[in-house]
Amino acid sequence: MNTQIDDWLSRFDAALTSGDVSAVTALFEPNGYWRDILSFTWNLVTLEGRDSIGAMLETCLAGTAPSNWRRTSEAEDTEDGAAAWIAFETGVATGTGRVAVRDGLCHILLTTTENLKGHEEPRGALRPKGIEHRADRHRVTWSEKRAETSARMGFEDQPEVLIIGGGQGGVALAARLKALGVPALVVEKNPKIGDSWRNRYRSLVLHDPVWYDHLPYLPFPDTWPVFTPKDKMGDWLESYASIFELDCWTSSSVDRATWDAEAETWTAEVTHEGRTVTVTPKQLVFCTGAYGPPNTPSFPGQDSFGGTLIHSSAYHDGADWAGKRALVIGAGSSAHDVAVDLWEAGADVTMYQRRPAIIVRSETLMELAFPTYSQEAVDNGLTVDMADMLGAFTPFALATEKNRRLYDHIRERDADFYAALGKAGFQYDFGEDDTGQMMRALRTASGYYIDVGASTLISEGKIKVLGGTIDTLTPDGVRIDGTDHGFDLIVACTGYASMNEAVAPIVSREAADMVGPCWGLGSGVRGDPGPWLGELRNMWKPTAHDNLWFHGGNLALSRFYSRFVALQLKARMEGIPTPVYARPAPAA
Amino acid sequence: MNTQIDDWLSRFDAALTSGDVSAVTALFEPNGYWRDILSFTWNLVTLEGRDSIGAMLETCLAGTAPSNWRRTSEAEDTEDGAAAWIAFETGVATGTGRVAVRDGLCHILLTTTENLKGHEEPRGALRPKGIEHRADRHRVTWSEKRAETSARMGFEDQPEVLIIGGGQGGVALAARLKALGVPALVVEKNPKIGDSWRNRYRSLVLHDPVWYDHLPYLPFPDTWPVFTPKDKMGDWLESYASIFELDCWTSSSVDRATWDAEAETWTAEVTHEGRTVTVTPKQLVFCTGAYGPPNTPSFPGQDSFGGTLIHSSAYHDGADWAGKRALVIGAGSSAHDVAVDLWEAGADVTMYQRRPAIIVRSETLMELAFPTYSQEAVDNGLTVDMADMLGAFTPFALATEKNRRLYDHIRERDADFYAALGKAGFQYDFGEDDTGQMMRALRTASGYYIDVGASTLISEGKIKVLGGTIDTLTPDGVRIDGTDHGFDLIVACTGYASMNEAVAPIVSREAADMVGPCWGLGSGVRGDPGPWLGELRNMWKPTAHDNLWFHGGNLALSRFYSRFVALQLKARMEGIPTPVYARPAPAA
Repeated sequence: MNTQIDDWLSRFDAALTSGDVSAVTALFEPNGYWRDILSFTWNLVTLEGRDSIGAMLETCLAGTAPSNWRRTSEAEDTEDGAAAWIAFETGVATGTGRVAVRDGLCHILLTTTENLKGHEEPRGALRPKGIEHRADRHRVTWSEKRAETSARMGFEDQPEVLIIGGGQGGVALAARLKALGVPALVVEKNPKIGDSWRNRYRSLVLHDPVWYDHLPYLPFPDTWPVFTPKDKMGDWLESYASIFELDCWTSSSVDRATWDAEAETWTAEVTHEGRTVTVTPKQLVFCTGAYGPPNTPSFPGQDSFGGTLIHSSAYHDGADWAGKRALVIGAGSSAHDVAVDLWEAGADVTMYQRRPAIIVRSETLMELAFPTYSQEAVDNGLTVDMADMLGAFTPFALATEKNRRLYDHIRERDADFYAALGKAGFQYDFGEDDTGQMMRALRTASGYYIDVGASTLISEGKIKVLGGTIDTLTPDGVRIDGTDHGFDLIVACTGYASMNEAVAPIVSREAADMVGPCWGLGSGVRGDPGPWLGELRNMWKPTAHDNLWFHGGNLALSRFYSRFVALQLKARMEGIPTPVYARPAPAA
Repeated sequence: MNTQIDDWLSRFDAALTSGDVSAVTALFEPNGYWRDILSFTWNLVTLEGRDSIGAMLETCLAGTAPSNWRRTSEAEDTEDGAAAWIAFETGVATGTGRVAVRDGLCHILLTTTENLKGHEEPRGALRPKGIEHRADRHRVTWSEKRAETSARMGFEDQPEVLIIGGGQGGVALAARLKALGVPALVVEKNPKIGDSWRNRYRSLVLHDPVWYDHLPYLPFPDTWPVFTPKDKMGDWLESYASIFELDCWTSSSVDRATWDAEAETWTAEVTHEGRTVTVTPKQLVFCTGAYGPPNTPSFPGQDSFGGTLIHSSAYHDGADWAGKRALVIGAGSSAHDVAVDLWEAGADVTMYQRRPAIIVRSETLMELAFPTYSQEAVDNGLTVDMADMLGAFTPFALATEKNRRLYDHIRERDADFYAALGKAGFQYDFGEDDTGQMMRALRTASGYYIDVGASTLISEGKIKVLGGTIDTLTPDGVRIDGTDHGFDLIVACTGYASMNEAVAPIVSREAADMVGPCWGLGSGVRGDPGPWLGELRNMWKPTAHDNLWFHGGNLALSRFYSRFVALQLKARMEGIPTPVYARPAPAA
């Protein structure tokens, strides 16, 4: 198998060097995949088939100057063919990736940029010395320098990058930028880093296991619990920001940001310590969470409702609702979590479902869907960085098919679980094309729940379920299909707008519209209109607006993609040419 | 080589199982070494030669019930013979170790306790789940539980272990105890964890490289600088205490502790938040640093001195001494560091040497003395835990000889460096037996300096050197061998008392004397009287006083030995029999 990979790499190298694009594309299966992260395209692009590979190379090959392709691991026999880790170089960077070859042709190729030449990430042997050991009458100590840097940042010294939001996305990106020597300022609205987790509802515990949740550079210790409680996560983020010496302004907000295309600079008005500070970064990154602002509930007659009506984002603690009647509108993660929190507090809880949701048991996912993020994987020597690269290696188009097979299995395996849910009146499905939770998360980031307890309450009738059509809210509750139901509290778990909506109040409505929605693959299902994109919209890569970026997602996505956002920003700071292939056109 | 190890282990196993002590000792070289950490002796003991091995086994073998000896790595050809990592069990514990075999006989055996059966350290697959994923009307969240535990600790709930001092020793031990489920309370005199580092002199940066300095469970990230500045170290300790949820009382002090032998409980009066709290732990651990209280300077005529006379522990910052004349008394690490700090601040600095010091260049040590704690070691897959075990494997008796060879090499390699020092009037040596810095550190923890800049200043005459005998301090300075020298400041770098002196003001003079000095090997050199002990006095193991322990040392020692201190305390809490072999008799 090693020979098969080596032969292919050598032919690939020769074809690339010759500049003969058709010779390169002939080395791929007719429907072969090439996912490139920055190396050739300065973009995140999945090329599907020889034509699209050829089109990219016609544009990008000459400027990329790739060379030195080599295998860096023993080849393995996988379902995608003979596969191995690879390394290569371009004119400005070193790269790593993975290739799968079948019958002498490439089935999948992943190329990612690892380091910019001359600007390598200072890890391991490249770490800073910290001090020159010698006497020095002009010594400035670490703490003096740190205090000065921190005091000047945003005032005498302008950040290269202004990061809006100090959750996992913001701090992971800031840590990467710090390592690369890119001055960055994080603006966080809460009083402390970590509060974005602490402020969430009382019973929240991460649904993903610890092996999937590491942040860059500092993995959780191996005594860390499998599932991290929200406040512990908050404390970790706070320690993380301290350990990596991040420049964070807390209790602060970016109120306005204006782009000066001529000066290629943002002018941002930031409320900080009670006054308005003008900050002029080159780059603006929205790390405001995987979602935009809440979708404000809008029901007929809602002004007449005599109880309390709130959006799930305003819900924190069920303690006030013991013995009261609560209606949760929606059947996604927020709806389930809020329903459990209310039930635990002693409320009488009903869930109103507008449409079927995808439900999957956490235990089932742990056993079947996280093979590369598990104690077994760690014990077998698979690092989290390798697991991330393995995940990135599967093109989203193939992930669709793999997930369909996974959910065929899950439906059978957990048939009793689903039968009980159905019997309780809960409407579930596995998506329009039966591809399950992960694909829906990638497509719309809504309409699913990883069961950590709510489904049992629903099956047992402890949380009641309603369907049908809401006619109107009434003074006492809600009328559904002509029947009145009384409620004291209605929590609208009606989701969030896309991340680009966070741009509107800060930059402009026009900018938000020009960029268009974030997230989604163009799968054509409800909430994720086509055409097929093969990558997530607008995430971690150039948008239609100059120097405006979106970074975020769960901990795993924040960890992995922060590397590439940081590399893109570093390259721009250093004046390394970054011609973007297939940059999105303005949406509006 | 594997066969050689396997054969020996199999014979060793059989001999132990038969209970035939002479059969066991016959498997060792006549002068062979067996270092045992807890497994057989519930002590830290190096047995030298067949007789002492036999004596230990006569006492300990029956109660230990060792079994299941096996090789856990490929054997290597080393200067100590064929060597390999091993594992074994006792009646109550699992153990790991290492063995070196020459001509069929054991040259060195290391046995250490890894886990107490049924009380395994919850790492990796054994980590806590963090939550049972289910709805629960009696849910107590992590933060609620944490807040309650913290509020009760020392009041409604008594700690099993009271730790005096929240430096690296205290927090490393507390983190180990937390993992093992042993309630512990750390009392730290400073306002914040980490202040013990922050409060030290301005220019301090760790002299040891990062690979040597990791704390348990949470290694420094691989972007961390090679040499950690003191304030960054302070911040790390503060984050560490938060991350591991340590119960720490800061701005607090243990004022008195009284041992009740009948109740087997300490009664400690602790000043905490301005009031006296009575805390009743079972175990009391002094983690007050590698040293006891300062050796107060005492010179003839010192009351007549008109300038400022302070001990080095009271020295923080040279800023006040620009243009002033300063005398530093002593030639150890503190003296050199203080001299540099004063010189950097613009003082006119003289060092007065009472006796020769051991000087070695930091760069030389980095290249020659830290092969197992280096980027190369990491890149070759040597974990810090394995490096620690390798270090522990060399008996102190053999370390003496190895260090003599190392310093023969260093003297030659750095001949120019030493010649320049000598020419400047500085008196240096390599110890009474030419074994250099590390052995002196183990023997007396004083009288040496790892050069990070001061020696160059001395060689260049920027720091002047005086020797001779101090006749008296005078109103204007000091008279040495009849000659008057004028000084505005005298810093007495006259070292510290042994750690047991910290016991006297808290427990009693009698207790301090009964325990006797800490540290030192019984090497017979000045400051480390014989007889030869083969292990450090009183450190990390039972002392002559019931339930009174000393833990500490540099970061590396705090890391490694905290594991064994924690295991000893855990075993006692769980009522596991811990018969101590060769417990020290009361010293007085």
